[in-house]
Amino acid sequence: MKDLVRSVEQGVSHRRRVDITRPKVWLKNELSRVGLAEFLCTYVMMVLGLGCVAQVVTGQGAFGHYISINIGFGLAVAMGVHIGGNVSGAHMNGAVSFTMCVFGRLAWKRLPLYIFAQLFGSFLGAVTVYAVYYEAVNDYCGGNLTVTGAKATAGIFATYPAPYLSLMGGFVDQVIGTAMLLLCLMALSDQKNKPAVGSSEPLTVGLVVVLIGMSLGSNSGYAINPTRDIAPRVFTAIAGWGLDVFRSGNGWWWVPLVAPPIGGVLGAGLYKAFVELHHPPISGQQENSIPLKKGENICTNV
Amino acid sequence: MKDLVRSVEQGVSHRRRVDITRPKVWLKNELSRVGLAEFLCTYVMMVLGLGCVAQVVTGQGAFGHYISINIGFGLAVAMGVHIGGNVSGAHMNGAVSFTMCVFGRLAWKRLPLYIFAQLFGSFLGAVTVYAVYYEAVNDYCGGNLTVTGAKATAGIFATYPAPYLSLMGGFVDQVIGTAMLLLCLMALSDQKNKPAVGSSEPLTVGLVVVLIGMSLGSNSGYAINPTRDIAPRVFTAIAGWGLDVFRSGNGWWWVPLVAPPIGGVLGAGLYKAFVELHHPPISGQQENSIPLKKGENICTNV
Amino acid sequence: MKDLVRSVEQGVSHRRRVDITRPKVWLKNELSRVGLAEFLCTYVMMVLGLGCVAQVVTGQGAFGHYISINIGFGLAVAMGVHIGGNVSGAHMNGAVSFTMCVFGRLAWKRLPLYIFAQLFGSFLGAVTVYAVYYEAVNDYCGGNLTVTGAKATAGIFATYPAPYLSLMGGFVDQVIGTAMLLLCLMALSDQKNKPAVGSSEPLTVGLVVVLIGMSLGSNSGYAINPTRDIAPRVFTAIAGWGLDVFRSGNGWWWVPLVAPPIGGVLGAGLYKAFVELHHPPISGQQENSIPLKKGENICTNV
Amino acid sequence: MKDLVRSVEQGVSHRRRVDITRPKVWLKNELSRVGLAEFLCTYVMMVLGLGCVAQVVTGQGAFGHYISINIGFGLAVAMGVHIGGNVSGAHMNGAVSFTMCVFGRLAWKRLPLYIFAQLFGSFLGAVTVYAVYYEAVNDYCGGNLTVTGAKATAGIFATYPAPYLSLMGGFVDQVIGTAMLLLCLMALSDQKNKPAVGSSEPLTVGLVVVLIGMSLGSNSGYAINPTRDIAPRVFTAIAGWGLDVFRSGNGWWWVPLVAPPIGGVLGAGLYKAFVELHHPPISGQQENSIPLKKGENICTNV
Repeated sequence: MKDLVRSVEQGVSHRRRVDITRPKVWLKNELSRVGLAEFLCTYVMMVLGLGCVAQVVTGQGAFGHYISINIGFGLAVAMGVHIGGNVSGAHMNGAVSFTMCVFGRLAWKRLPLYIFAQLFGSFLGAVTVYAVYYEAVNDYCGGNLTVTGAKATAGIFATYPAPYLSLMGGFVDQVIGTAMLLLCLMALSDQKNKPAVGSSEPLTVGLVVVLIGMSLGSNSGYAINPTRDIAPRVFTAIAGWGLDVFRSGNGWWWVPLVAPPIGGVLGAGLYKAFVELHHPPISGQQENSIPLKKGENICTNV
Repeated sequence: MKDLVRSVEQGVSHRRRVDITRPKVWLKNELSRVGLAEFLCTYVMMVLGLGCVAQVVTGQGAFGHYISINIGFGLAVAMGVHIGGNVSGAHMNGAVSFTMCVFGRLAWKRLPLYIFAQLFGSFLGAVTVYAVYYEAVNDYCGGNLTVTGAKATAGIFATYPAPYLSLMGGFVDQVIGTAMLLLCLMALSDQKNKPAVGSSEPLTVGLVVVLIGMSLGSNSGYAINPTRDIAPRVFTAIAGWGLDVFRSGNGWWWVPLVAPPIGGVLGAGLYKAFVELHHPPISGQQENSIPLKKGENICTNV
Repeated sequence: MKDLVRSVEQGVSHRRRVDITRPKVWLKNELSRVGLAEFLCTYVMMVLGLGCVAQVVTGQGAFGHYISINIGFGLAVAMGVHIGGNVSGAHMNGAVSFTMCVFGRLAWKRLPLYIFAQLFGSFLGAVTVYAVYYEAVNDYCGGNLTVTGAKATAGIFATYPAPYLSLMGGFVDQVIGTAMLLLCLMALSDQKNKPAVGSSEPLTVGLVVVLIGMSLGSNSGYAINPTRDIAPRVFTAIAGWGLDVFRSGNGWWWVPLVAPPIGGVLGAGLYKAFVELHHPPISGQQENSIPLKKGENICTNV
Repeated sequence: MKDLVRSVEQGVSHRRRVDITRPKVWLKNELSRVGLAEFLCTYVMMVLGLGCVAQVVTGQGAFGHYISINIGFGLAVAMGVHIGGNVSGAHMNGAVSFTMCVFGRLAWKRLPLYIFAQLFGSFLGAVTVYAVYYEAVNDYCGGNLTVTGAKATAGIFATYPAPYLSLMGGFVDQVIGTAMLLLCLMALSDQKNKPAVGSSEPLTVGLVVVLIGMSLGSNSGYAINPTRDIAPRVFTAIAGWGLDVFRSGNGWWWVPLVAPPIGGVLGAGLYKAFVELHHPPISGQQENSIPLKKGENICTNV
């Protein structure tokens, strides 16, 4: 918040010409601008995504099924892309930011800002969902906040593995899941192939998440995102579920932190190695007719 | 209807040059034009939205589940946007109109017209759904129109809180739900970010409502709209459900009236504070290449 | 088929200049061209639409639920629009063709061709679905083809009212359902409002049908289409279900024939009266920038 | 892999001018480029498509239903189109490639490459899904990998007919299913009709597969694709399910190999005969305004 105020002041002091149709306050400080947008899109994605899980868990079949979580979390990601899209790129996922850095589409010095904004947005999103579903959760589990068992509610906030899953199996699951995510995202933004452009991009990105939830979701709840998983886990540890959130699943908590960045680089690398690197050079005329995405420039150039 | 006739006459008398491809009767009176469109889109949205609830409730699992209501109400909103879109802006929601006024995108003197058109459309929508499902409702509940109990049918028309929900909890639920709605709507129409433009806008707006229903729907039925909720409630009070529609849920009825406008301003304000205000000034050339939405001008300029 | 051959011959005999990239055989005879396209899109729509019903009925819950029929029939309509789109307008529905005639968007002399093509496509669609699901239907009902009862299968092909529904109630249901369909279709094609243009049109039209199925489907199976309903009904009468297909539901069969055209004109008229007639005249420049749909011209001008 | 390396070397050796923004390594060898893209899109489609089946089968109702497979496999196809789209055309289906050859949209000499890439991608996709769901499958069936019975798991990878289905009935089912697929694909790419262009194409192609799964899926699992079916079948034979995968369903395995190519040509031929051949010649000006798809050229010209 202090950052915001400072940036606003800088913005104001640096302005030279007044644009009538433009709002009076803005941040010239690129860093704050990007951080605020990344925070807000992550926050909204988490409120609406975790809300779906909370509703299905506490609704006991009367308010949607697993497929509602698949569709809802995907749409939440789509809305996040609309919100942060051309400002921060709306990664909302530490593994996406990390992979973008590895492939030179985000400056490494920007990574801490993205991670921090994502963690903060995720945490506040979990707080908001807990506030909205406080009475529902307590009614469902009788006030007994548990990580495992028939009335477990910790899974509303963070992911936990299925009983049959080993840590090794879960690690593979998270690597493959995040690889598929980044492989698709690279294809969707490859302007020399068949990208999702303009208004269709946010929804298509959301549909990737819908699809991964439907196809790679049952083993461990498709975190495929370290920041989405750890921040709500920490929140639940504080809010009454206790340290079981770290002990459960043979200490599962670190897998969604470590596996997704590896999977992300693997998936994006596969796309580059099999498709992107082999595009023939295109003529200048054609290149101009396919406009570059503004958001990418902003991310790359800083 | 008198307004319509008068406006038509004015329109005719003011016409100077005849456009061959244009229909012979039209309203030059902007106010009537906007009011009629806002009425019609609200009416269609309500017929098709409440119809989904009626079908699921009376169908007892054979004709769709809760997810049908989520998807159906969202698509109903999308169709409303197609119908009213470029004439009235298709708010179909008193909280949206109020928020647009607060942020200068709708003239305050227009607000009563919007509210009236929305109330009238909602009321007639409820009447139509009751007519269509008259036999189904009576078959389902044995002619016993009740607000609570196993065969309650009042929930087809207006929203009621879950048994566990306090008024305070419901108030928070409605504030957050409407905040998410308006936050997303602001992002979808922000031409300097990643908006939903052209043909994709109505469906994307509908998907926001699908999403809110999936993630923030189980506490109290996601009214997030004062006009959508109160008009059918009044209708049910008249049509045979009685004053229980106001007594039920500890006098729940006022919450969907008061909380959504507050939430709407909060959500739109969040988007403005975190993203919109910080857009850098864009060069004249670029600004021209992103056309302003016609509908917004019509709303703002009156 | 004879028509096709004749038209092809005419087409060939009238050709004067050869276009290298053009196929060698085409119908210059506009009438045959349009009829063939309307037949094919109706046929595909019916195969894929009725197939959804057959699958859900014979699958007994293992291969989709009612919502699959809603989504599937809507997507089937969307594919029909892609197939017939710019040639015949892809009405696939006698009530749509009739309403287009009433409002001057289709020549009356064309109506019999459209109706015939739709009936023929519907009939052959039912034949195809019966062929594909012949073994499934017989396995499901033990070879006993009935219109009513626990293992009734006539509902795969034509619509039947719910037990509680009176003919009067069903008539209202079909009028309102078709009114909503045409009201939305008019909005989707109104170039002065917020239409669904280009690639998004077929899917949006399909979503209207998804929505009507979800909101106005449980009373009588949302025929909202005389040609879609009567042709498969006649087929089932011939194929083994007998004359019960006409007797069932107090002689329900005529309702989906008579009510939809009335509803269609009502709905389209509502849109025209409340929105379309009141569009202000637009300047020549703007009018040119919104291209008219090619398909409409073809329909109107003949 | 050897091909890849060789092509890269050729590509490098043939390069004459350096494009600053272009990656340093690319395949000038068109054949390798296309083969790699076709492999990758098929692989991703299979991982995400088979993953949906694995999740629904092993989840026993807790992680999605049949409709999740319909939606998920369709979205998997859509992502495949995004990945391979403008390089190989993203057929991902031997019947599609065969039909494109028959109708002159793919050179016959290219067919073996496409088939090989599709088989290889399908096989590795099955391997990946088996790796990800290894523990889930073993937990579900107690380590007893069977093709039939209550805990059968072979259906995760290849298709098997319903108990009631004869080989003849299944053959018809696969012919009609693939005919519908190719008929719709021809319409979606017919630039003189109402095609799905730009960003909407991949999703619309995916929706065709969603629709066929909802309407023609229950008889035999809608393979409609020889390469998608045989490669995972061979994998399961090797991986522990044994030769029952070929014996089951009266030797069902050859039907998804033989019927789809026949159905594909039938469906595409129907579209050509009823619609495409009869398009009137269009004026040069209009023809230019509808840009040809780049991907098609690449396929056709080789």
